[in-house]
Amino acid sequence: MLREIERDELEPLATGAWILGAGGGGSPYLSYLNMRNLYEGGTRVKLMDPMALGDDDLVAVVSNMGAPLVGQERLSDPAFAAKPLRAMEEYLQKKFRAVMSVEIGGGNALQPLQVAAVTGLPVVDADSMGRAFPEAQMTSFAIADLPMFPLTLSDIRDNEVVVTRAASWKWMERISRKVCTEVGSIAATCKAPRTGREVKEHGVLYTTTKAIRIGRVVREARRRHDDPVAALIEAESGVLLFRGKVQDISRRTTEGFLRGRARIEGLDGDRGSALDLEFQNEFAAAWRDGEVVVTTPDIICVMDSVSGEAIGTESIRYGQRVSVVVLPAPDVLLSPKGLQHVGPRAFGYDFDYRTVFGAAA
Amino acid sequence: MLREIERDELEPLATGAWILGAGGGGSPYLSYLNMRNLYEGGTRVKLMDPMALGDDDLVAVVSNMGAPLVGQERLSDPAFAAKPLRAMEEYLQKKFRAVMSVEIGGGNALQPLQVAAVTGLPVVDADSMGRAFPEAQMTSFAIADLPMFPLTLSDIRDNEVVVTRAASWKWMERISRKVCTEVGSIAATCKAPRTGREVKEHGVLYTTTKAIRIGRVVREARRRHDDPVAALIEAESGVLLFRGKVQDISRRTTEGFLRGRARIEGLDGDRGSALDLEFQNEFAAAWRDGEVVVTTPDIICVMDSVSGEAIGTESIRYGQRVSVVVLPAPDVLLSPKGLQHVGPRAFGYDFDYRTVFGAAA
Repeated sequence: MLREIERDELEPLATGAWILGAGGGGSPYLSYLNMRNLYEGGTRVKLMDPMALGDDDLVAVVSNMGAPLVGQERLSDPAFAAKPLRAMEEYLQKKFRAVMSVEIGGGNALQPLQVAAVTGLPVVDADSMGRAFPEAQMTSFAIADLPMFPLTLSDIRDNEVVVTRAASWKWMERISRKVCTEVGSIAATCKAPRTGREVKEHGVLYTTTKAIRIGRVVREARRRHDDPVAALIEAESGVLLFRGKVQDISRRTTEGFLRGRARIEGLDGDRGSALDLEFQNEFAAAWRDGEVVVTTPDIICVMDSVSGEAIGTESIRYGQRVSVVVLPAPDVLLSPKGLQHVGPRAFGYDFDYRTVFGAAA
Repeated sequence: MLREIERDELEPLATGAWILGAGGGGSPYLSYLNMRNLYEGGTRVKLMDPMALGDDDLVAVVSNMGAPLVGQERLSDPAFAAKPLRAMEEYLQKKFRAVMSVEIGGGNALQPLQVAAVTGLPVVDADSMGRAFPEAQMTSFAIADLPMFPLTLSDIRDNEVVVTRAASWKWMERISRKVCTEVGSIAATCKAPRTGREVKEHGVLYTTTKAIRIGRVVREARRRHDDPVAALIEAESGVLLFRGKVQDISRRTTEGFLRGRARIEGLDGDRGSALDLEFQNEFAAAWRDGEVVVTTPDIICVMDSVSGEAIGTESIRYGQRVSVVVLPAPDVLLSPKGLQHVGPRAFGYDFDYRTVFGAAA
């Protein structure tokens, strides 16, 4: 129930997490380099089956919070990633049994590995989104109405904040986001601690393993000169939504988020059509020739058509040949309560969930 | 060393504190009504000589933080004022011996009385400014390089934040200000706890008594149909800077502050001249016919020429007949270190401290 994450799993984990990020969560590349460096120095991190958690074990839910663009400029490191966990232990006067990621999508997939490398704690094979999302209330734990506090937040200086109470998940998001923005739009956080029982009942389970599996499929296809996009779609029951060339991008970093819109001009079978994608850190909705065809929480991935490498909302740019692939969202996000938290209306859109996987809810 | 604050001291305290507010700190009127109400219900609050504090006694430094204009719309109450003190006791796992105000100027002069009414703690006859200032690092404790954390902050909902570490006083100000702004530009806070020794060595002492004394002088003159402005100037060694009529006001509530400029057209001996006042919550500098004549930390008070009632930066308006009086600042603010924290350059001005009391530093 506890196994070592092997050195040659780190790169697939980064590749798979970047795909599950739906354009957001920040590139895992720099965190991967940190982990590779630690592994070269002899560090090893253990992966824990969530079912091996005792009901009362305390699990730290860690994340790197902020605007992905800033994460490309201000590098993270394992000691920094672990700071809010230490602050939380001090605040609670209790010790954690294990650490997990708030989101498996993007760089946060590797955040618990970095924390684990510093603290010696195992990483739970689970997260609370099954992808990446921009806001604190967009988690399976929030959907299950679990408490949202306390939260600890550290920056790279010596600032440290504990949000000891919050009136709602939205308030927790608003307050912690403002602090994050003030300290430079990037901060390490430790979210509300979870019991083993809460993780087992309300976490999105085995997503670290899933990310590694996805990364392996893509990298293996690439190695064999097969089509990595086709390989991903087959392995994960995905749908190819569109192929084309990036024609236009507008992007702004505002209020701690990266927001914007991308237009893709169709190629191959999609020639003559255009796909518009809107994002708030992650791709949130897609319009084909002006009509909404798919929305959050379906996982909308923009991939390099040749390499199958995911392309983030901060790195998508004019001229890229891309394939837009949709992967199914975890069931918990598709319940009526789930859609309230992460459906298109939660992002301010005036329309309901659309999916490419059969009938929408 | 511990005496009851009498019912008929509450109104003078409010009047005097409003004068010492230098236009800021928020009107004490609503807090005064709260206290009067509590006193009518039988509550009594005790005033403690700071010299009666034991060296290791723990003192809570409380304040209502935010934009004065908002404080006029969202009313405070004693239970709310006490919330962050309770949060601090919980965080520290220690009990406070007494409570004091961060600033004697404006409504915060009565904040510890409200907290005292709820908690039963005595109010220390001291503050950390001897007036009001807009920012957290503008205190005698900051000038003395005492630690600036932890700080607790509560809003009227159920949000509660502990800033457990801050890289500097400026960072403490920036972070707590952003949280305050996000929860509606008004929050109750408990600043970094002080020991009795710290209060005795670095507090601005006997300022509650001073505010009551000032209020009595003004109210007594008013009752006798004497000139309250002249009475204040005589009793507190003040200087009459200008008499005139408010001619123009610009004002904006931004980033948690009330900023702006007021122009006063001279009357009586000042006819033909104009006085410009700039403020960030408090009046920060005055220009007579374009030339700087007095700056922070001198206490610049705008008073109704007839009643001697102080006029706040949020309530000053066209047509008011006003007297601008300058009262001397506490010595600690006039040291080179003090001026770094609260002199005009700390407010972004490109000139040094000017005073009406002999030579400037």
